[in-house]
Amino acid sequence: MARKPKVKFVALGGLNEIGKNMYVYECGHDIIVIDSGLAFPDDEMFGVDLVIPDMTYLVKNQEKIRAVILTHGHEDHIGGLPYLLKDLDVPIYGTRLTLGLVERKLKEHGLLSKAKLNRVMQGDLVKLGNFTIEFIHSNHSIADSVMLAIHTPEGVIVHTGDFKIDPTPIAGTMIDLGRLGELGKKGVLALLSDSTNVERHGYTMSESSVGSTFDDIFLNAKDQRIIVATFASNIHRVQQIINSAVKNNRKIVVSGRSMENIVEVAQQLGYMDIPPGSLISIEEMGRYKPNQIVICTTGSQGEPMSALSRMAFSGHKKVEITKGDLVIISANPIPGNEKLVSKVVDELFKLGADVIYESLSEVHVSGHACQEELKIILGITKPKYFIPVHGEYRHLIQHARLAEKMGLAKENIFVMDIGRVLEIDSKEAKKTNTVPSGKILVDGLGVGDVGNIVLRDRKHLAEDGLIVIVVTISAQTKEIIAGPDIISRGFVYVRESDGLMDEIREVARDAILKCSSKGVTDWSALKSNVKNDLATFLYSKTKRNPMLLPVIMEV
Amino acid sequence: MARKPKVKFVALGGLNEIGKNMYVYECGHDIIVIDSGLAFPDDEMFGVDLVIPDMTYLVKNQEKIRAVILTHGHEDHIGGLPYLLKDLDVPIYGTRLTLGLVERKLKEHGLLSKAKLNRVMQGDLVKLGNFTIEFIHSNHSIADSVMLAIHTPEGVIVHTGDFKIDPTPIAGTMIDLGRLGELGKKGVLALLSDSTNVERHGYTMSESSVGSTFDDIFLNAKDQRIIVATFASNIHRVQQIINSAVKNNRKIVVSGRSMENIVEVAQQLGYMDIPPGSLISIEEMGRYKPNQIVICTTGSQGEPMSALSRMAFSGHKKVEITKGDLVIISANPIPGNEKLVSKVVDELFKLGADVIYESLSEVHVSGHACQEELKIILGITKPKYFIPVHGEYRHLIQHARLAEKMGLAKENIFVMDIGRVLEIDSKEAKKTNTVPSGKILVDGLGVGDVGNIVLRDRKHLAEDGLIVIVVTISAQTKEIIAGPDIISRGFVYVRESDGLMDEIREVARDAILKCSSKGVTDWSALKSNVKNDLATFLYSKTKRNPMLLPVIMEV
Repeated sequence: MARKPKVKFVALGGLNEIGKNMYVYECGHDIIVIDSGLAFPDDEMFGVDLVIPDMTYLVKNQEKIRAVILTHGHEDHIGGLPYLLKDLDVPIYGTRLTLGLVERKLKEHGLLSKAKLNRVMQGDLVKLGNFTIEFIHSNHSIADSVMLAIHTPEGVIVHTGDFKIDPTPIAGTMIDLGRLGELGKKGVLALLSDSTNVERHGYTMSESSVGSTFDDIFLNAKDQRIIVATFASNIHRVQQIINSAVKNNRKIVVSGRSMENIVEVAQQLGYMDIPPGSLISIEEMGRYKPNQIVICTTGSQGEPMSALSRMAFSGHKKVEITKGDLVIISANPIPGNEKLVSKVVDELFKLGADVIYESLSEVHVSGHACQEELKIILGITKPKYFIPVHGEYRHLIQHARLAEKMGLAKENIFVMDIGRVLEIDSKEAKKTNTVPSGKILVDGLGVGDVGNIVLRDRKHLAEDGLIVIVVTISAQTKEIIAGPDIISRGFVYVRESDGLMDEIREVARDAILKCSSKGVTDWSALKSNVKNDLATFLYSKTKRNPMLLPVIMEV
Repeated sequence: MARKPKVKFVALGGLNEIGKNMYVYECGHDIIVIDSGLAFPDDEMFGVDLVIPDMTYLVKNQEKIRAVILTHGHEDHIGGLPYLLKDLDVPIYGTRLTLGLVERKLKEHGLLSKAKLNRVMQGDLVKLGNFTIEFIHSNHSIADSVMLAIHTPEGVIVHTGDFKIDPTPIAGTMIDLGRLGELGKKGVLALLSDSTNVERHGYTMSESSVGSTFDDIFLNAKDQRIIVATFASNIHRVQQIINSAVKNNRKIVVSGRSMENIVEVAQQLGYMDIPPGSLISIEEMGRYKPNQIVICTTGSQGEPMSALSRMAFSGHKKVEITKGDLVIISANPIPGNEKLVSKVVDELFKLGADVIYESLSEVHVSGHACQEELKIILGITKPKYFIPVHGEYRHLIQHARLAEKMGLAKENIFVMDIGRVLEIDSKEAKKTNTVPSGKILVDGLGVGDVGNIVLRDRKHLAEDGLIVIVVTISAQTKEIIAGPDIISRGFVYVRESDGLMDEIREVARDAILKCSSKGVTDWSALKSNVKNDLATFLYSKTKRNPMLLPVIMEV
């Protein structure tokens, strides 16, 4: 009898935030992909719009791929799908709201007609070659999120996706810990669990705790218009804003493209409970007094083009912030966004608004499990092997330590790198080879055409600007017949009288004349002489290093 | 009898973080300047090294300026001095450590010989025209910091500088609340108080609480080398690191230029208590076992060129992080630095080090007063007028509200803008005119030569790169005789085969030919035609907008 195929696991995203979540399970001739997310560029990725994982391994093995399984509808789990579907023709499985959001996204990319979307319910089992995927009800900051039990020939692997344990969620029930318990009793081969909040002690508060804060605030905001900014995808948060608004006889306006989209999808699919007549359009707002209105909007991360930012910087066509407005930012800044958010808060205060934000009040809870919840998942599933996922490297390490404290053998805990393969069977697990992996940068329509050289140049241009030196030289005599002309951008604001541009021109001319007097006529030598002389001159004069671009035309 | 002159207050820095702290008090023909700080550039200030306040008002009124008074030696309070002293010849007053740090700074700028430094002690009174400045002992995250009581013809103004109330500081005693009490009993005209931590409830922990955490950690780090990163200027923190090291029979290595500098100054001035033989040079480290060493270093903010970052990214010549090292980051990330710090932590973990940072342990306390301390200062000084300073706009607003809750009349609380003058006398205070103010950007040797246009160009270049189009045209025939040549940087990585550059050349050539066929020979029209056609072509092809620089040479 042939040897059973081992199960291979490799993360292409979801560790160290590269391209966010994308996990690959392989067994024999079958591959399943869990999630296909995108990441937003960091400060050093000048001009980059978004970042996706390198999918080379999937493209190479496309005949093996049975499906992409989605755990929930957040961008860092579904945002890479349009790029994946451009290269691969594979079926997609997800719950109702998740697919609702995917449909809208694929439509925008003109890919909806070719997509094979398969709707599943919590509790469903889907057989895909060697794998049987079980969808388990979960809690997270977006409705309809699931954990996965991946049944393999070697045993069951529990893949949590993003989760928290919410005993009092806004819709539905607490995460199905009972099913995890059953699986744990029977034996779980491996657990892959969300590490985002591993640094936080205790428990994450229930989503419903935010509702009572809203109730209190709304009740006290007697004469104020209320504007609440939150994550567009958190429809339970939006639902609670609507609930508090209705209780206080206020109409709700939804503002911001992504929030309008998601609320529309959620309504169509029956995920929201909005009393008839309580939702009004932004145009109808004028008919009501300020204290009859709640505006629910995007921009809780201070994103410069978002609705809230435009309101704060007086660039919103339909909402003008005035004295007496009450703005609630129902979100925490994602790491890296702190400054953006605080600029928006400052601007709102300057316009005379009252602003309630995270440091001041309990207007937000996280969607991710804290330490005690992570321990419960470890304790109830009792996995043989443990692989922390979804987090920065330090989060994976802390999560590994937590598992060790729970009694897991150190050698059965694997902190993985992107692209590194883990082979798992019922007897052992070990890291083996690596597959191609890394970040692919998306800029405009270009996928992967912005790499290190382009980023290095952008960084140089950003820091010091550039100087272009153009000169026309006679092909026969090698003498200068026009120029050198000097054009600078982003270098320094030069008043004509400063003479710096004249000096630059002189240095460039001297460098060229020096070359021709020595008989140097090779263009690249000429250019590098101009560059060197100018760089020395400019650094001594200004302590700056602009990019220097000599251009020589021969006529 | 002539009317008494009113007291005027204007902040040139220290509100909304512009150029950090610089406050001006004026009475009759006398001006005193409190602090002269710098700020670090935000993400949008590409290539800018630092930011100082606009000092036009001081230059215009230089004959009135009696002194610059320094509250303490942090960069955001003394960093602007070299730029101020280039324009103004004024005496400087400060305590011993503050002046020690100023001396070193002015020496680097070659300005020490011309500086008039006046050392004061806590309790001293200095008469400067209409003002008498009283230096009051305070607590902060740097030794020798003071509060100021500014005695004026209209009454006493208390200017806190940065402070906390530390009942158990590392050296010296608790802030002189007694003196503030005396002043309060006699009557304080106005209070200007530090707003940095107004969002935080309760009290800031004492600096000495960090010492016991260090003791615990050092005791448990039996076989590990210990590396502690903290703020170079926090010599009390450094002292506590040394104390814990000595208790555990470890030698101390100080690494990082600014920390070496400050420790040297502090030692010379007698601010540190270091047992002989316990401080060793980095070269001597090899003679000791890892568990006999503590390295005290800079880089707690993840600054890319700092010692800790170089260790993390394996670019440090003398310290290599290895498995078993214990790294303590004894600081919180300053807003905006969160990502930098977490990158360094991740790299240290990857090298196998154990890392203790803020989220995990009590290895840092703030130097600024929290709400309860701020209330104590308000309550003990009982000022007639209150002006919150040092903080973002939202901090000033929150601090104003705190004062209102303490019973201060709303009309006696003034949230100021940079450059706005507040006139104060014993009967009333009111906002009057404005003086020139704002941010001056320093880039290399240039002070103020980088402005909005340069920054806008740098941002454009950073996001989309540039394309230079050079063409040589005959002066007589207006025909193209060389080019167009296309040079791109930071735009896209173009493989030769892509043909995009050829297409760009064609579009540019067509635009020029179209012009000449229409008889358009005006250069600026020619250039704008090339730019428009290329911009349209590139956006439709790539969804990007690189900067386009057409250069036309005529021969």
